[in-house]
Amino acid sequence: MHAPTPTSWQLARRAQRLEPSVIREILKITEKPGIISLAGGLPAPQSFPVQAMREACDRVLADAPREALQYAASEGFGPLRDWVAAQLATQGLKVQASQVLITAGSQQGLDLVGKVLIDAGSRVAVEAPTYLGALQAFAPYEPDFVAVDCDEQGPLPQALAAAAGARFLYLLPNFQNPSGRSMGAARRTQVAQAAAQAGLPLVEDNPYGDLWFDAPPPPPISATAGDGGIYLGSFSKVLAPGLRLGYLVAPPALFPKLLQAKQAADLHTPGFNQRVAHEVIRNGFLDTHLPQVRARYKVQRDAMRAALDKHLPAGCRFNVPAGGMFFWVELPSGMDAGALLPKAVDAGMAFVPGAPFYCHAPRLNTLRLSFVTVSPPQIDQGVAALGGVLGAALEARR
Amino acid sequence: MHAPTPTSWQLARRAQRLEPSVIREILKITEKPGIISLAGGLPAPQSFPVQAMREACDRVLADAPREALQYAASEGFGPLRDWVAAQLATQGLKVQASQVLITAGSQQGLDLVGKVLIDAGSRVAVEAPTYLGALQAFAPYEPDFVAVDCDEQGPLPQALAAAAGARFLYLLPNFQNPSGRSMGAARRTQVAQAAAQAGLPLVEDNPYGDLWFDAPPPPPISATAGDGGIYLGSFSKVLAPGLRLGYLVAPPALFPKLLQAKQAADLHTPGFNQRVAHEVIRNGFLDTHLPQVRARYKVQRDAMRAALDKHLPAGCRFNVPAGGMFFWVELPSGMDAGALLPKAVDAGMAFVPGAPFYCHAPRLNTLRLSFVTVSPPQIDQGVAALGGVLGAALEARR
Repeated sequence: MHAPTPTSWQLARRAQRLEPSVIREILKITEKPGIISLAGGLPAPQSFPVQAMREACDRVLADAPREALQYAASEGFGPLRDWVAAQLATQGLKVQASQVLITAGSQQGLDLVGKVLIDAGSRVAVEAPTYLGALQAFAPYEPDFVAVDCDEQGPLPQALAAAAGARFLYLLPNFQNPSGRSMGAARRTQVAQAAAQAGLPLVEDNPYGDLWFDAPPPPPISATAGDGGIYLGSFSKVLAPGLRLGYLVAPPALFPKLLQAKQAADLHTPGFNQRVAHEVIRNGFLDTHLPQVRARYKVQRDAMRAALDKHLPAGCRFNVPAGGMFFWVELPSGMDAGALLPKAVDAGMAFVPGAPFYCHAPRLNTLRLSFVTVSPPQIDQGVAALGGVLGAALEARR
Repeated sequence: MHAPTPTSWQLARRAQRLEPSVIREILKITEKPGIISLAGGLPAPQSFPVQAMREACDRVLADAPREALQYAASEGFGPLRDWVAAQLATQGLKVQASQVLITAGSQQGLDLVGKVLIDAGSRVAVEAPTYLGALQAFAPYEPDFVAVDCDEQGPLPQALAAAAGARFLYLLPNFQNPSGRSMGAARRTQVAQAAAQAGLPLVEDNPYGDLWFDAPPPPPISATAGDGGIYLGSFSKVLAPGLRLGYLVAPPALFPKLLQAKQAADLHTPGFNQRVAHEVIRNGFLDTHLPQVRARYKVQRDAMRAALDKHLPAGCRFNVPAGGMFFWVELPSGMDAGALLPKAVDAGMAFVPGAPFYCHAPRLNTLRLSFVTVSPPQIDQGVAALGGVLGAALEARR
């Protein structure tokens, strides 16, 4: 609690809950040359719309340079808010543009939600496993995390009563990071009903929803939750993360506090970026761009599925994600993925152990593999190396 | 504390401390067509380097599109951190690039400082008056603000003992918003010494330091405070605020926690913006650009000084800022600037009342005037209208 500095700096108690990202530390290890990294969470850079961005930058700086470069409204750029509301309507989520707050990536949405809703000691319910960045965003507000029992479709409806009294339940219904799993339509309805019965508000995070391979996912669970839900979206996976553009949609009663938190945090999201992104997407660009991204990622997904079928030893299990960026692998009980990582790196590949994605009771025999930034031949080579390490570890247990 | 929603949303206690910006509410009133607004805090859009931005966007998207559009390091873009460290050295502040954290404007630096250093009930010392945005950034962390006695050069050294035990003293030494005042070199040394004696760390905010008119300001007070100081800077006034680029320089012992807070808040500042800004400034662009901005603002400052000399009734006092964007006017004791604002708007001009800039005991007879976005003839017209309103009010008091 007391900073070990020669002067009198004293840290806030919440600073104890700030920690280096375990994943970033792992990624440093795995950045060795020659390593096939299936550890990253980055979208494929080949999918970034570079030419469209150049043209959009030119147009914005020709047509509205002073507006784009000046201070701007904390709510966000009006036409972009309109676009978000219209886009969500096509996915079954009917909201007003006045409910849309443009954020610095959806990560900032998570921070604002934490700032406005979490007191020290508040219970906050999350999936097990869940997105590590959300745990990191909420943690400094000192919640007591509650892990909700999940199956291969996410939270079990009957598990929500135990989370009653929590400030909210944080959910990633589509192609979850890290597990790759998705909630079906029936499960969404059941969870929304059980949450309403438990008086449990929902915070729905959907960064991957547009990256489906065969069929679009069911409507957001927020569509059923109504004023009991906050919805978070992102342009990081459909355009590019380097723009740092996301959005949150809040019930009218909550919106003003989230807006004031945004204003206190950074005044507003860069107007230049908002206008450039809007210029890129406003005339249907995503209608041709997204199918290309989906097709690319599906080929990658299929390559990893084939490699896992081929190379994983008996006793390992994995899901087959219907979209997104990740496979989740369960090793035989008693194995520790974190302990095997150095051996995998020695064998030329890297993954992310599953443990950091659990708020409590980490399942050590899990790991995450990303399939989007490495070529199919390298996916095969990397998974083969992983299979070798796992096989040797299993052999050693006998 | 309990949100009045039909569902079970419950707000965090700190959300009570989030409020709509008084100034933003005032600005809405003053945006009526035909009003000469001296109320804004916006830099002059004529100074935005539009052509340089266009060329920089093109170069970044041609040379490093995938790096610029991908996720990036939370610390910021390395060459930009190097540039900041080198630039600060020319101003007398010697720091390592590893101490530089690139933020979403200096407003985000204030939020991160609050997050890492303020507990509920912590004392935080500020100037009276001080930057409203800092009060707003710190407030949700529930500090008890302590107003330090000030004169026309800022905090009085002998007043700092009373602030001992505060988590830090927040200072704007150059052309302060709102007062326009600056701390001389001797005062900086005295304040740094008194702060060290009181065990009081310093948080120095310098968004306006490059906007000097006749001579550059003395070195930052952080240069004397050493590890007892955090320094905040911004590209908003030297390039353009719409990029949302600022930086924070922290002692090595504090840097990791601020970095982790940044990562939890939004992962990183947009890499595209950082690279574009660096591309604009890396070859000495500011050496020719800043003298133009200074010359423009000085002409405006002189126009407002002349208008104030000409139009303000006897009994009103004002400083003459040596840089920055603002005049600060003191009306005769007993007058209430806020009560006069509607009359001023009726008379065709707008200002910002001084009261919101005080954490306690607002001096109602103060107001802020910005001279940078309105032409000299309009400055004269606006100040004449203000003079008329003030004269009539004084007349009515007799």
